[in-house]
Order: sequence, then structure tokens, then C-alpha cells
Amino acid sequence: MTAFQDTSEVKARKESASRWFAELRDRICTAFEALEAELEGENAERFAHIPPARFERKAWDRQDDDGAPGGGGVMSLMRGRVFEKVGVNVSTVHGKFRPEFAQQIPGAEEDPRFWASGISLVAHLQSPLVPAVHMNTRHIVTTKSWFGGGADLNPIYPDETDTADFHQALKTACDRHDPDYYPRFKEWADEYFMIPHRGESRGVGGIFFDYLESGDHEADFAFTRDIGETFLDIYPQLVRRHMYKPWTEEQRQHQLFKRGRYAEFNLIYDRGTQFGLKTGGNVEAILMSLPPLAAWP
Amino acid sequence: MTAFQDTSEVKARKESASRWFAELRDRICTAFEALEAELEGENAERFAHIPPARFERKAWDRQDDDGAPGGGGVMSLMRGRVFEKVGVNVSTVHGKFRPEFAQQIPGAEEDPRFWASGISLVAHLQSPLVPAVHMNTRHIVTTKSWFGGGADLNPIYPDETDTADFHQALKTACDRHDPDYYPRFKEWADEYFMIPHRGESRGVGGIFFDYLESGDHEADFAFTRDIGETFLDIYPQLVRRHMYKPWTEEQRQHQLFKRGRYAEFNLIYDRGTQFGLKTGGNVEAILMSLPPLAAWP
Repeated sequence: MTAFQDTSEVKARKESASRWFAELRDRICTAFEALEAELEGENAERFAHIPPARFERKAWDRQDDDGAPGGGGVMSLMRGRVFEKVGVNVSTVHGKFRPEFAQQIPGAEEDPRFWASGISLVAHLQSPLVPAVHMNTRHIVTTKSWFGGGADLNPIYPDETDTADFHQALKTACDRHDPDYYPRFKEWADEYFMIPHRGESRGVGGIFFDYLESGDHEADFAFTRDIGETFLDIYPQLVRRHMYKPWTEEQRQHQLFKRGRYAEFNLIYDRGTQFGLKTGGNVEAILMSLPPLAAWP
Repeated sequence: MTAFQDTSEVKARKESASRWFAELRDRICTAFEALEAELEGENAERFAHIPPARFERKAWDRQDDDGAPGGGGVMSLMRGRVFEKVGVNVSTVHGKFRPEFAQQIPGAEEDPRFWASGISLVAHLQSPLVPAVHMNTRHIVTTKSWFGGGADLNPIYPDETDTADFHQALKTACDRHDPDYYPRFKEWADEYFMIPHRGESRGVGGIFFDYLESGDHEADFAFTRDIGETFLDIYPQLVRRHMYKPWTEEQRQHQLFKRGRYAEFNLIYDRGTQFGLKTGGNVEAILMSLPPLAAWP
């Protein structure tokens, strides 16, 4: 197949994928708002000036380079007492890749048309003892069609049990679909989430996958959904483990330095950031991943 | 000339340039320490917990890719009551460019050997009413030999008089050497200091020049020195104008957001940052330009 995939079957798949990303967004937002409402005790008092937060939504439209409608997205942003800043974005965009970019995208060399939909989440927590996190899954269609995504945990103070539980949850999800997935996708995350100039990882890893096109669309979509479900199950557990603990100013300062390195990674290396900026995406949505406050020594 | 420039005449020029960068560094540090010591009144009381600051120096050595000695540099960093964080770095490095990078550098296509020396300064101020600033000048030798540099003002709240005086000082300096320099180098700064994805400039501009090789080495060096001298003359005047004024929390927050965009520029677009990271420079020195604290909405 060398032309952009646009059959009625493909259209139904696109519709189904983008609907699922929006549903996952709704369920994640509900779960995170519940964590905000649950907080009590010392840390709730520390943020007594902030009411238990709710997500605020903001829609945006995208124009393709030639001015044609190119889809759009919805940002969901919450600033609260547990989540200092958490963004959950969904977007469904389509159009033509710019020529120099088309050469880098599978299946877009000869026909630059594309369709892409996904969910992207980054959470920066008030407490330096609660791990920051990133998750995203996406479905992309050119003359090819694939899924991609990943999740990685970014603790300020890595906790062995958290790390083991986060990895185990992802492994269990992967193993339900293909025994090769977890070792491949974990290793990919270890490579991807490196900050080369620092010679260190941005967190404790997770999984990263891209160009997943096994030949069985339903199986690939089921795997992608499973990653989203797994994230929704495991991450709130990790938050609850630590959200009541008191922290020190020194720990806060260390958190701000870690966030500085997170910003370095996202601005210099992150593939989603590059993809978004190069496809005329919504800058506010793309850079929603940046920390609310960061420091450099 | 197609071989790396290494005659005794060129060696004397290199020595003279790197010595001058170090002298300028000393004079700038002295001038900035004087500003720290001068502060009194309300803003001195606000930072009563910080003694009038002095620069701290830290030397670093560079190894070329093959492990051979590749020069090094000295960072000078001050954290004070006027200057929240100011770094003044000098470095003199030499070696061989990596092949993919050599293709991008004038005169390095056939012989990848290089020598580079320079001074680089970025100041982030405590007060949102005192403009942040950047200045750097450098001398680079491959099979060619040139000077480059620039200075730009980054006010949080642009002040017409400051902007006019900063530009006028640079214009006067440029005009002493060549009437074409100021219009060319001002326009270059306007282009260079853009943040394309934001569609805005990182500050109010200044000058930017590169590959300056007029054929008269002494004239080019004299021009480069003049830019350094001009910076040293004008910038402390701008600091003194505003360093005693009180500011609000709202102004501080706006400063942190502006610094977020400054970090975006430096990490995604800045040529010096890219040059440094790609030539195995000292990461701590290269990223000294990043703000002590920055925010994203």
C-alpha cells in the first residue's frame, strides 16, 4: 500500500482509537481529582490556600500549513495540592507533513498525508516524595498505520518498591500480549529516556514503544489500551503511598533541580515535543509537559 | 590556506585573544561585585540573609575525543543580592571537530582541527525590574580565523530608555569600526534571538556577529574588544537605575515565566549551547546560562 490509508475500515479504526484516548483521559482525570479530594492532614493544611483542585479544559484547533482545517485537541490542566501541575492532553490531527519531516516518518516518503491521535500526560507533584510521571499512547496513520506510546516514572527520590511495582505492572500488561514486548520496550525506554549530555537517565524508566504494526490491528490496539489501563491502575497507588508524608525544604530544592533536568530532556531530546513543534502543533499543549517551577544550580 | 592555522604569528594572536578574554572577565567580575557591595536600603534588607556576594571560580579541563588534552576553562559564578545568578565563563579549547560537525564549520571541512577561545556571560537578576543580560565574544581558528560575539538585553519589563541606551552604546561602538556593522549585526541579533515556536523575541535584542574575518586581524580583534568594553560600561549603569526599586510577587512570577522562555531558547536554539555540547565541552559551564529558577504556566 503506497497511498494514505483512508478506507472506511481505517476510518472506523481511527474513530475508535481517538474515542478511546478521550475516554481514558476522562477516567484519569476523575482518578486524579479523587486524589486531590482525598488529601488530608498536614499536607492538606500546608496547601489550605488551594481548594481541592479540578481539571480545567481548553480546546484548540489546528490549521495545516496550507490553511486547511487540521484537527485539534483538548488540554486538561489541573493545579492542586497533590498535583502541582498535571496536564492530560488529547489531540487528533491530520494534514500533510512538511517535506523534510516526511522523509523521517515511516510510510510518508511518497505520500505526505498523515493522521495522528493520542493522549499525553505529564504530572509534576507538590511533594518531592511522590514520583512525577509521564504516559502517552498514540495511533498514527500514513501509508502505514501503527501504535506507539510509553510510560516512565520520574521519582525525585527513587524508592525500590515503587520502581519494582511500576515495572512489574507494565511487565504484566506486556506479557498478556507478547512475551517479547516487555524486554524490548523496557530496553527502548532505558535508551530513550537518557539525557546524553548529563550521562544520566531522567527517571527510573518504564516502557517505550513505537512503530508497532504487527499486522493485527485489533491486537495492537488492545495492547495500547492495556498500557493506558495499567497506568491508571498503578500510578494512583504510588501517589497514595507517599502523599501524606511531610517533606523538607532541602528535598523541595532537590526536586526543583531534578525538574531542571527533566526540562532539558523535553526541550532537547523528546520525540513528541519535536513532532509537535514540527507539525505546527499547539505550543501551549506541547509544552504543557514542562514543570511549573524548575531550578538550575 | 587549507591547513589548520598554526604559524607563530597565529599562535601569538591566539595567546593575545585568550589573554584579553580573561582580563575582561576579571574587570566584569570586579564591576559586578561592586554592584553587590553597593546595594543598600529595602532591597538589601530583603536579602539580609545573603552577604554581599563574590564570584567563585572553578577550573575545568577538556579532553579531546581521542583522549588528548584539549584545553579547558574557568567558570566564575556569583549568587548574590543583586545578581541572583551570574556566570562569567572563559575557555580556550582545541582539538578536532567530530566529522559530522566539521562540515558545518567554516574552514573545517578538509582539516577538522580547531582552536577556540572566548568569554561568555549570562546574568539573571533578583529583581524583575533589572534586565537580565547576555554577552559573549570569541575567537575561532580552523583553516580560517574569525571573531564572533554579541550581547542582548533581556528585560522582564522593557524600559524604553534602557533599550535605547543599550542599543545606542552598541551602535556607537560599532560605528567606530565600520558604519555597516551596526545595522547588520543588530538585524542578525533580531533574527538570532527569536524563539520561533513562541513567535516572540527572547528580549529586546542587541547585536550578534559571527565569522568576522575582514582580512585585518587587528581591526577585527579591536572591534571585538570594543564590544566587551562597551558592555562593561553600559550594563552596570542599567543595573544601578533599577536595583533599588521595590518589586511585587506578581512581578517576580512574571520574571519566572520569562525565564522559562529564556531556557527554551537556550536549550533548543542557542548556537553556543549546541557548539559546546557537540564539542564535548564542560556541561556545567555550558548550561551555566540557565536561570536559577524558572516557571511554566
